Amino acid sequence: MGAEPQMTASAPLTVAELRDRLASGALDALTLVESCIARIEAREAEVGAWAWFDPDFARAQARTLDSYRRAGRPLGRLHGLPVGLKDVIDTKGIPTENGTARDKDRVPLRDAFIVERLKQEGAIIMGKTVTTELAFMDPGKTANPHNLAHTPGGSSQGSAAAVADGMVPLAIGTQTGGSVIRPASYCGVTGFKPSFGAIPRRGVLTQSPSLDTIGVFASDPTGAALLAEVLFGHDPEDSATELAPAPALFAQATTAPPIPPVFGFVRPPGWEDANPQLHAAFDELVAALGDQAFEMPLPPVFDAAAAQRKVINLAEMAYHYFPYQRDTADQLGPEVRAAIEQGNAVPARDYQSALDYPKLLNAALEEMLTRCDAILCPAATGPAPRGLDSTGDPIFNGLWTLCGTPCITLPLLTSEEGLPMGVQLVGTKGNDGRLMRSAQWLFNWADGTSQ
Amino acid sequence: MGAEPQMTASAPLTVAELRDRLASGALDALTLVESCIARIEAREAEVGAWAWFDPDFARAQARTLDSYRRAGRPLGRLHGLPVGLKDVIDTKGIPTENGTARDKDRVPLRDAFIVERLKQEGAIIMGKTVTTELAFMDPGKTANPHNLAHTPGGSSQGSAAAVADGMVPLAIGTQTGGSVIRPASYCGVTGFKPSFGAIPRRGVLTQSPSLDTIGVFASDPTGAALLAEVLFGHDPEDSATELAPAPALFAQATTAPPIPPVFGFVRPPGWEDANPQLHAAFDELVAALGDQAFEMPLPPVFDAAAAQRKVINLAEMAYHYFPYQRDTADQLGPEVRAAIEQGNAVPARDYQSALDYPKLLNAALEEMLTRCDAILCPAATGPAPRGLDSTGDPIFNGLWTLCGTPCITLPLLTSEEGLPMGVQLVGTKGNDGRLMRSAQWLFNWADGTSQ
Repeated sequence: MGAEPQMTASAPLTVAELRDRLASGALDALTLVESCIARIEAREAEVGAWAWFDPDFARAQARTLDSYRRAGRPLGRLHGLPVGLKDVIDTKGIPTENGTARDKDRVPLRDAFIVERLKQEGAIIMGKTVTTELAFMDPGKTANPHNLAHTPGGSSQGSAAAVADGMVPLAIGTQTGGSVIRPASYCGVTGFKPSFGAIPRRGVLTQSPSLDTIGVFASDPTGAALLAEVLFGHDPEDSATELAPAPALFAQATTAPPIPPVFGFVRPPGWEDANPQLHAAFDELVAALGDQAFEMPLPPVFDAAAAQRKVINLAEMAYHYFPYQRDTADQLGPEVRAAIEQGNAVPARDYQSALDYPKLLNAALEEMLTRCDAILCPAATGPAPRGLDSTGDPIFNGLWTLCGTPCITLPLLTSEEGLPMGVQLVGTKGNDGRLMRSAQWLFNWADGTSQ
Repeated sequence: MGAEPQMTASAPLTVAELRDRLASGALDALTLVESCIARIEAREAEVGAWAWFDPDFARAQARTLDSYRRAGRPLGRLHGLPVGLKDVIDTKGIPTENGTARDKDRVPLRDAFIVERLKQEGAIIMGKTVTTELAFMDPGKTANPHNLAHTPGGSSQGSAAAVADGMVPLAIGTQTGGSVIRPASYCGVTGFKPSFGAIPRRGVLTQSPSLDTIGVFASDPTGAALLAEVLFGHDPEDSATELAPAPALFAQATTAPPIPPVFGFVRPPGWEDANPQLHAAFDELVAALGDQAFEMPLPPVFDAAAAQRKVINLAEMAYHYFPYQRDTADQLGPEVRAAIEQGNAVPARDYQSALDYPKLLNAALEEMLTRCDAILCPAATGPAPRGLDSTGDPIFNGLWTLCGTPCITLPLLTSEEGLPMGVQLVGTKGNDGRLMRSAQWLFNWADGTSQ
């Protein structure tokens, strides 16, 4: 039951390598799960990534999956891979508390769409990871594995920290503002927020249906692609999804681009106030990329994007969180409570106007994305801030969430204190596969393995 | 250039018969157009159905179409059929004034989606019909052809009156509350409002995108089916439309049902306040239908439908009509002006709540429609009210518009004063063809031709 070497930070196997060994039988699911359990038991008291975790629940799944493999039954695409689930994702028979008092001891009767998919594909539900309260901005108990005095970001803080700490190779979160990309950046892992509507949300807490997007965490883009590919789909119960074939994300992530990709470097609104270390790191990165990066101005129409996104988020949150306000207003954190109050005051006309705003942004983006393979920009304003009383600033995330474009952050930069800083790539809405391919290229390039 | 016999009230040809004669060459498009022109020139001063009409424009199209037929070119499905278009539908090169001061002399540069379709299918654009101001409740100049002292209803008043008066065999309107079904009922023609999203709205005035629905007017259901079938489709510019095959409305309307249809008679909210003549007429109708009609209670959830629809309509109208309020507030009619003011005060939370309300209604409706082929109910609260200063009460229309279900009104009843009263049938959303078949059956039954 000792930690497996492949789960240590020094010589980790990639998710794809784990998947191959699990499928071939070179690695038992139970062995992998035991190594995850050992890591969790060693570190959870400090990191606090889990809202619900039962080692025997994980072991039982692993044993079943191992017996399937030995019996020669067909294996799912995620056979034996442990996955952490943000505690806003409904799991049948397992508490799903949404990080808030009103949902204490709430046990769903039905799995979320994505949990059904995970089970079909042989993934192991490792447990439920900590969320900020109602996936908003009042922090949970999680600390940053790189430095426990620093925030892991939010709202998918447990998922990001669990992957970063090697507790689990894969995890799932959600992003309404910057809740996947920012914690991934702070924790030094790959975070992928697909195109809006790519992954069905049935059974996941609704904060803001025009923005809520399910995303994934892994050590590298290929791992994120492997997990996300299984989750993409159509569900009549989620009108944001479309009846269209899912892209071959994993195949694209593992395919070399026909020519090296070109990145359009963008300094988004808020750039001037970002950490100077970030400024320097991006200058270096862009210089090192040479002809493969050039700077693009972001049109002024983006200046209002953050404010417009906030109008939508607050108005929809006030409507969807009404039961929480009604039943447990006095137990809600200050951020959620204030946001609901602000949301209640939004006029329908402003809300409609904000809903129309992405049309302008996407027209501009579409043009920009004809000139590069992906937009390159920071994932957060710097390394994870000190203190666990805030989850940091999502200013570099909200505009892309509003646009519905796919975004991925790669853990390529490090601050002087040794904290990670993410490099965010933004692709064309609906072309998640191409973004994956460009991201894996950049990941390999930074690792010195790209030609 | 005298009136053609087929256009008189005494022995009218159906739209399908006209279509067949036009296609075979038994009737020239120009001959039909001349008969329409003659009728318009004789009656327009009294009826006031047209916002823009140029006989030579119509004649030129007819001559071209006749030359096509003589040359043996393939003919469109509406070859030679004159159509009137509500003046909220953009027509390239022809004024489209939306019934309001700000759009006086406005000439669109592009045809609406449905106008492109009409031209492709060989229809003749006869002219633009009168709309209430901005398709809301401030009346235009149109009078009811059956009694010029009575309203034709609104907002598609010119389209309903033009078909009722034999000026044109077909016309197009729009319904956000009751703007197709009510004027059709008052004017004694067939009016058809398809399922929400069935006909693309690109190039048509946006009042309330969650409700706005394009509908058609004809003398009988088969005629309405012929026209509507051509308009159904998908347009990426109208997100309410779906990429799905259009139903064969005309084939279904002209097919006898496998067994005689059964109608569920419903007394909707407002029934008690309706005209006693209407009560009596429906009692008689339901009794005459015998086993083919039974009364169904409408669940109490429908009591709030009208209010919820109004919240959506006002909130969306305030947003979309902002340019009219900004530029010509002092020239707007009292109804539009008051509605915009009310709409500006709607909170986003109430608006979202109203947008979710149809889910409840449709769950109830779906169950009801498993027990009958169509719901049968009044199209309006009685015959057209006296006076042209109001367009009548849409209370029996808004609930179905909110549900997005297909509705059709048939001119089967007559008041003591000799004014028509419509019988409305409501079908399952997305099953417009079955509704058409049931409607044509009822139309024939009332005419004594059904077995």
